[in-house]
Amino acid sequence: MKPLAWLCLASSFALAQAGPERSVILDLSSTPGAKLRTVPVSAVTLKGGFWESRRRTNVERSIPTLLQLLEEHGIADNFRRLSGAKSVPRKGPLFTDSDLYKWMEAAAWAQAGGGHPELRRTFDALTRDILAAQEPSGYLNTWFQEDRKSRRWSEMVTGHELYCLGHLLQAGIAYYRTTGDRTLLDGGIRFVEYLLRDFGPGKRPLLAGHPEIEMALVELYRTTHDRRYLALAGYILTGDGERLHLTPGQIAYMFSGRPFIDRTIMEGHAVRAGYAASGAADYWMETREEAYGTALERLWRDLTRSKMYITGGTGSRSAGEAFGDPYELPNAKAYTESCAAIANLMWNWRMLQATGEARFTGVMETALYNSINSGMSLSGTMYCYRNPLELTREASQSIRNPWYTTTCCPPNLERLFASLPGYFYGVSGEGLWVHLYDRNTLAWKLGDGTPLAVQMETKYPWEGQVDMTVSPRQAREFTLFLRIPAWSDATTVSVNGARVAARPEADRYLAVKRTWKPGDRVRLVFSMTPQEIAAHPRALENQGRVAVRRGPLVYVLEQEGQAEGVNVLESKLLLTGDGARDFAVKWEPDLLGGIVTLRHKGAHGALDTGGLPLYRRYNPREPRAGSPAGLVFTPYYTFLNRGPSALQVWVETAGQ
Amino acid sequence: MKPLAWLCLASSFALAQAGPERSVILDLSSTPGAKLRTVPVSAVTLKGGFWESRRRTNVERSIPTLLQLLEEHGIADNFRRLSGAKSVPRKGPLFTDSDLYKWMEAAAWAQAGGGHPELRRTFDALTRDILAAQEPSGYLNTWFQEDRKSRRWSEMVTGHELYCLGHLLQAGIAYYRTTGDRTLLDGGIRFVEYLLRDFGPGKRPLLAGHPEIEMALVELYRTTHDRRYLALAGYILTGDGERLHLTPGQIAYMFSGRPFIDRTIMEGHAVRAGYAASGAADYWMETREEAYGTALERLWRDLTRSKMYITGGTGSRSAGEAFGDPYELPNAKAYTESCAAIANLMWNWRMLQATGEARFTGVMETALYNSINSGMSLSGTMYCYRNPLELTREASQSIRNPWYTTTCCPPNLERLFASLPGYFYGVSGEGLWVHLYDRNTLAWKLGDGTPLAVQMETKYPWEGQVDMTVSPRQAREFTLFLRIPAWSDATTVSVNGARVAARPEADRYLAVKRTWKPGDRVRLVFSMTPQEIAAHPRALENQGRVAVRRGPLVYVLEQEGQAEGVNVLESKLLLTGDGARDFAVKWEPDLLGGIVTLRHKGAHGALDTGGLPLYRRYNPREPRAGSPAGLVFTPYYTFLNRGPSALQVWVETAGQ
Repeated sequence: MKPLAWLCLASSFALAQAGPERSVILDLSSTPGAKLRTVPVSAVTLKGGFWESRRRTNVERSIPTLLQLLEEHGIADNFRRLSGAKSVPRKGPLFTDSDLYKWMEAAAWAQAGGGHPELRRTFDALTRDILAAQEPSGYLNTWFQEDRKSRRWSEMVTGHELYCLGHLLQAGIAYYRTTGDRTLLDGGIRFVEYLLRDFGPGKRPLLAGHPEIEMALVELYRTTHDRRYLALAGYILTGDGERLHLTPGQIAYMFSGRPFIDRTIMEGHAVRAGYAASGAADYWMETREEAYGTALERLWRDLTRSKMYITGGTGSRSAGEAFGDPYELPNAKAYTESCAAIANLMWNWRMLQATGEARFTGVMETALYNSINSGMSLSGTMYCYRNPLELTREASQSIRNPWYTTTCCPPNLERLFASLPGYFYGVSGEGLWVHLYDRNTLAWKLGDGTPLAVQMETKYPWEGQVDMTVSPRQAREFTLFLRIPAWSDATTVSVNGARVAARPEADRYLAVKRTWKPGDRVRLVFSMTPQEIAAHPRALENQGRVAVRRGPLVYVLEQEGQAEGVNVLESKLLLTGDGARDFAVKWEPDLLGGIVTLRHKGAHGALDTGGLPLYRRYNPREPRAGSPAGLVFTPYYTFLNRGPSALQVWVETAGQ
Repeated sequence: MKPLAWLCLASSFALAQAGPERSVILDLSSTPGAKLRTVPVSAVTLKGGFWESRRRTNVERSIPTLLQLLEEHGIADNFRRLSGAKSVPRKGPLFTDSDLYKWMEAAAWAQAGGGHPELRRTFDALTRDILAAQEPSGYLNTWFQEDRKSRRWSEMVTGHELYCLGHLLQAGIAYYRTTGDRTLLDGGIRFVEYLLRDFGPGKRPLLAGHPEIEMALVELYRTTHDRRYLALAGYILTGDGERLHLTPGQIAYMFSGRPFIDRTIMEGHAVRAGYAASGAADYWMETREEAYGTALERLWRDLTRSKMYITGGTGSRSAGEAFGDPYELPNAKAYTESCAAIANLMWNWRMLQATGEARFTGVMETALYNSINSGMSLSGTMYCYRNPLELTREASQSIRNPWYTTTCCPPNLERLFASLPGYFYGVSGEGLWVHLYDRNTLAWKLGDGTPLAVQMETKYPWEGQVDMTVSPRQAREFTLFLRIPAWSDATTVSVNGARVAARPEADRYLAVKRTWKPGDRVRLVFSMTPQEIAAHPRALENQGRVAVRRGPLVYVLEQEGQAEGVNVLESKLLLTGDGARDFAVKWEPDLLGGIVTLRHKGAHGALDTGGLPLYRRYNPREPRAGSPAGLVFTPYYTFLNRGPSALQVWVETAGQ
C-alpha cells in the first residue's frame, strides 16, 4: 500500500470514529491542553431571546442574499470557469475564493440543529463546482491560473493561497460536523496532502502571509487525528524566516514568518494577528508547549491593557488595517474591522477553553455584543467593514453596505452568527460551564455521559435576571460554573430560592457544587446600572470624556432620534459618576427591534462651537452655550439602522 | 534680431535698472496689488537681541557645516560629474539639486549688509560648477541624465524638475540682489527660456508636481519685468488638467494641476500647499485678479480655523506629509515639517504685503518663534524635520539630526534666518510699518525718499516693552504703523512720553500719524502675562488640556529639567484660568541660551497611570495620585537641546 493511500485511509478511519452530528465549533474531545470541552451547536436552541432573531435573520435573509451577491459578482463562477462549466473571466480580488468558503461555512453551521434543505442542496452543488476545479495534484485556487500559474507559492506574503485553503478546510469541517458529509473536507485534505509532499522543513519553505491556515490545520488534526497536520501548523507558526528573507515590516504586518512564541506585542494587521493568536492557542492546547501559553498571555495583556476598543474592536489604523501604538485608540479614525472583532472573539474563545478563565469570556462577550453585532444591520443585509466609535453624518454614509469588493466581513459575520449557539456552554470533568446568557435550551450531557437539560429564561442583556432550570436525567453531584461578568457590581445567585454560600466575584466563574436534581432552579441577578466609563489618560481622544455602558452593551449617542437642537458631536454631559442618578432606563419595544434606551436626566448643554476659534483662552468657568435638552443613548450595535447619522461613543463630560 | 536674443537684452536692461544692493526678499517696487513695499535685508541690523545670535550662529556655524555635509554626500558633485570635472556616481534623491540651491540662497542672503568673502568665493565656485553642468539648451537637472534622460518631463507629478528650477532662480535672484552678480541668475533664466520655447498653452503641457516655481517665476518677473515669466506662473497656477490626465488624488496631494482659484480647502502635502498659496499670492499682487484674493482668503480661513497647530506648524499626517481633516491636529503624531512652517510664514508674509493686515503678521510671528525656530538647534547644527507637540523620550531620539537624506529643511531654515532682517519692516505711501519686534536698527527711507533711521531697544519676546527712536532726516508727516499682537490683552503706546490718542487694538496695526522729528521716542508695552489656551472641542486630543503661551512663545513641558517624580506626559495642572496667578515668570540667563521659564505655582499631581486599566469607572472626584511638585515650562523652540526627553505642549488640566 502506498503511504499516501494509507494515510487517507487512516484519516477516514479517524473521521468515522469522530462521527457525524457532533457539530462542535472546536473538537476538544481529545485535546490534552483544554480545560473545557465544547458543546455542539445543535445542542443549544436559542428561543425568543436577544440572539434568536439575529440567528434567524442570518439564516433566512443574510445567507441567501449574500449568496446571490457572490454569484452576481462571479465569485462562484471563478471555480466553474476552471472546470470548463462556464466561460467567463476570473472576477474579484486574489483572495476571494475564501469569501465563498466562508459563506459555505455559514451555510454549514446553519444545518446544525435542524437543517435547511435548500441551503444544503446549494452547498452540495457548490462543492461539486469547487472540487471540479481542483487539480489532480490537490492544488485549488482560482487566482493562480493561466499567466499567474507560474507565480504559485512565489508570492506568499500577499498571495493568500494558504488563507483560502484554511477557509476551505473550515467550511469542509463544519459541513462534515453538521451533516456527516465529508466531500468538501476531502477536497481540502487533498490540498493539504499536496502541501505535505512538497513543503516544510527540508522541502520548500511555506509562509502564512495571512494567518488562518494554523487554526484550520489544528482543527483538521482534531477531526482526523493525523498528527502531520498539527506538525504543519507548528511549522507555519514557527515561521521559516531564514529561508524566506522577510523584512521586519512584513513580519510585523503579517504576524507570521518568525516564531510566534517570540512575539511580544500585538502589531501589524489586526485580523492577521488575531487569527495567528487563535491558531497559536489551538496549537498550545494540543501540544501543551508552555512557550505558547506564555506568549499568548503576554499578547493578551498587551491587547487588553492598551490596544482594544471599549467595544471589543481592534485595529486603530486604516493604514495596514493595523494595530496602533499603545493607547492609540482614535474614534473617528478607528479601523475596527468586523473581521478583527471576530478574530478577537475567536482568540478569546480558545483561551477560555484552555484555561476556564472568565476574563476571556468577558472580552468575547464585549466583542460579540458590540463591535461584532454592529457589523450586520438589523435587517441582515447591510454590513460594516469598519465599526468606528465616532462618525460625522457625511462619514456615516459609507459605513453600512450590502457588498464590498473585499467582502471578507459579511460571510465572517454570517458564519459566526450561524454557529452562535455553540458558544454558550462548556463541559469539563467537574460539570457544566455557562459562558453566555440568553433565552435558550440545552440538551447535552455531562462529562460522565449523564444527559443534561438546561432551560434558560431571561431578558438579558436588557434585564439582569437569569432563571435556569438544570435537569440531569438523574440526580448527580457536579459543579455548575456560572460566569459573573466583570461589569456586574453586585450579583446574587440562588438555587431553589436559597442564596448560594459562595460569594459571586466579578470576572470569575462562580462554582456551585452540589447534587443537582432534575428541575433544580438557579437564579442569577446581575446589576444592570448604567455605567460611566473613563479611559486611560494615554488614550488621548477620550480625555474629559466618558463612554456609557449597561450590562454587556456599550451605548452610543446617535444623532438620529435626538431632540431638535442637540448636536451629538458637540454635547457635554453633566455627570455625577453615578449612572443610576444620571440616566433613566427605558425599555422601548418598538425602537430598533426592541431596545433599552438610556436617557440622560441631568442638565447639559450642547456647546455651540460654530463660532469658536481654533484656539481660545482657557476658562474653567466657561459658560455652556446652547440649551439644556435630553440626550438619548442607544446600544452601539444598533448604529446606522435608521439611515446616515452622526454618532459618538465617547461623550465630553462637564464634570460636576 | 532674433526674438530670444532681444528678450534676453530686454531682461538685462530691466536688471540693470533694478540695480544691485537692493536686497529685498520680495521686490514689490512696481507691484500694483501690494499695499506695502519691502525693506532690504541689508537695511536692518539685528543687534544684541533675540534673533541676532540665531542669525550669527546660522552664518557662522549652520551654513558652513551644512555645506560640508552637502559636499560629503556628493550633492555638489552631482553637477561636477556632468561637466566631467569629477567621475563619481550620482548621489541623493531626485530633488536634491534643490538642497544645494537652497543652501546657496542662504549664502546669498548672508551677503546682505556686510559680506562674508569666503562664503562668496564658495558661492561663485559652486555657480561655476552648476553652470558647467547646464546643457546648451538651458536644461539643468542632475537626476534626469543618462538612462533617465528620456524620462525628462514625463514624470512631472514626482520629478521635481520645476521645483529644482524654482530654487535655482531664488538663489540666483537673492545673490543678484545682495551682490549684483547675475551669473547664477542668468543660468536660471536660460532654463526658463528653454521652458518657454517648448511648454505652455499650444505647446507641451507643464505641471508643478511640487509647487515652488510659481513664486520663483513671479520674482523673476519682478526682477526682469519680463511678463512672459509672470504668464508662465499664471499658466502653472491654472493647471493644464485636461491634457495631463491627473487623478483627483494627485491634484489634492500636489496642490497643483487644476485652477488654484477653484481651491476651497487646504489639503494634500502641506509644503506643496503652502508654496502654491505663496506663489498664488505673488501672482495675485501682480495681476490683481480678484479670484486669487478670494481663493487665498478662503484657504487662509480654512487653515487658521481648523488646520494649524498652535505653534504655527501645519501638516497633521505623516502619510503624504499632509493636512488632515478639519480639527485633525494630533500632537505626538503631528508631522509639522519645518518646511511647512516656513511655507506658512512665506504665504502669510505675502498676504501681509498685499493687505497690510496684522492677522497675517500674527501667523508669521507664531510660526517664526515656535514651529520654525524649533527646527534648528541652539547650536545651529541639528535640525528637525518634524516638530511634534508631544514626544516620548524614545520617540524624541530621532527628532534632531545633523543630516537627512531628504535634507530640504536644513537649508530652508538657513535661508530664512539669513534673510530674517528683511521681515521686520515695511513701507507704504503713508509711512513705515513695524511688523516684528527685536533689538535692531533700520536705515532706510520713506516712500517719498526721505532717509529714515529707526533704533529699536527691547528685550522682546522676554519682556513686553519696546522702545524705538524714529529719526527721519528732517521732520516729516507720516504714519507709523505699529503691529499690536493678537495675544496682547493690554497694550500702551506713547510718543515722547505721552500716550497716543488712538486705542491700540489687538491683531491690528495701530496707525500713529504725526509730524515725526529726528529722535522722536516711541514706547510700546505689551501685556506678557502667561496665557492658558484651550483648543476647539473638535481638536480631540486637546480636550481637557491647555497649552501655555507667553507673548509670541508657546511653552512646552519638557521632562529634562523637571524635579524628580514628575512625569510630563502624565501630569495634571490645577489651573484657575488666570496665568498671572498660576505661573511664576523667571528670567534664567544661563538656561538654554537665556530664556524666561514659567513655573506652575499651584498644587498639582503627576497621575500615576502605571497601574490604571485601559477602561475604568468614571469618578468626577477621582483622587489625584502622585505628589505635588513644581512644573517648569520652557519655550517650545528650545525643545530637545539638552538631549532626548519626553515633552508635551497640551497638558491635562484638573480645572479648579
